[in-house]
Amino acid sequence: MADKKRARVHVRLSLPNGGNLDEADIALIETVHKCRSILGASKILGLSYRKTWLMADALNRTFETKVLETFPGRRGGGAEITPFGERLAALFRSIERRSSASAAAALGELTASLDWSFAAEEAGQERKAKSD
Amino acid sequence: MADKKRARVHVRLSLPNGGNLDEADIALIETVHKCRSILGASKILGLSYRKTWLMADALNRTFETKVLETFPGRRGGGAEITPFGERLAALFRSIERRSSASAAAALGELTASLDWSFAAEEAGQERKAKSD
Repeated sequence: MADKKRARVHVRLSLPNGGNLDEADIALIETVHKCRSILGASKILGLSYRKTWLMADALNRTFETKVLETFPGRRGGGAEITPFGERLAALFRSIERRSSASAAAALGELTASLDWSFAAEEAGQERKAKSD
Repeated sequence: MADKKRARVHVRLSLPNGGNLDEADIALIETVHKCRSILGASKILGLSYRKTWLMADALNRTFETKVLETFPGRRGGGAEITPFGERLAALFRSIERRSSASAAAALGELTASLDWSFAAEEAGQERKAKSD
């Protein structure tokens, strides 16, 4: 999923009401925006429907304004993201971009210090986990 | 553990050799630096000895230079972080500080949009989880 060829900063936000916002939440918002369905998004993201629904529900309960709207009565169900959901995704992606930009020099120094024999072993484990 | 009163950016680094670096790794480095023992650090961090040892081992295998040195032969065992380990922690903390600073405005906007009734429920769950 991620670009494995370069070092990357991954961001998670912890919010003062106990809520959290991470890459998976934003991927859900963006995927629902494209496919307009929680079930469709769960398939694209490789998550169970239950897990996807719980993520959407937690997002909606974290903020005063809904992030996603679901239409269970509509033919084929369906979901849409709200303008606030769009803003949320944009804010998160902006935080990610700024974090990556400000970390560039440090990531370069870390990358220059890597042991590349670590790679084969871990990649093997990851391929195995993914193929299960 | 974290300051719950304000929004925070949490950083994880994925490295191109398959390695990862997160807050828990840096807390381990900093705790070993203070208490000079893997076992001592595991107790302070509330982790199993096995988990702590595996984290230390993964850190050492991720980079060309050791992050932590262990002295199993020494009276009482003991561990120390290397100058490279110190540099690693400093780089990570610097990435965190820059990410937080660059996210300040976005975090303010998100915090202003929070549903505070979410807080009681989640805090209750968290207290329960911590007391188990």
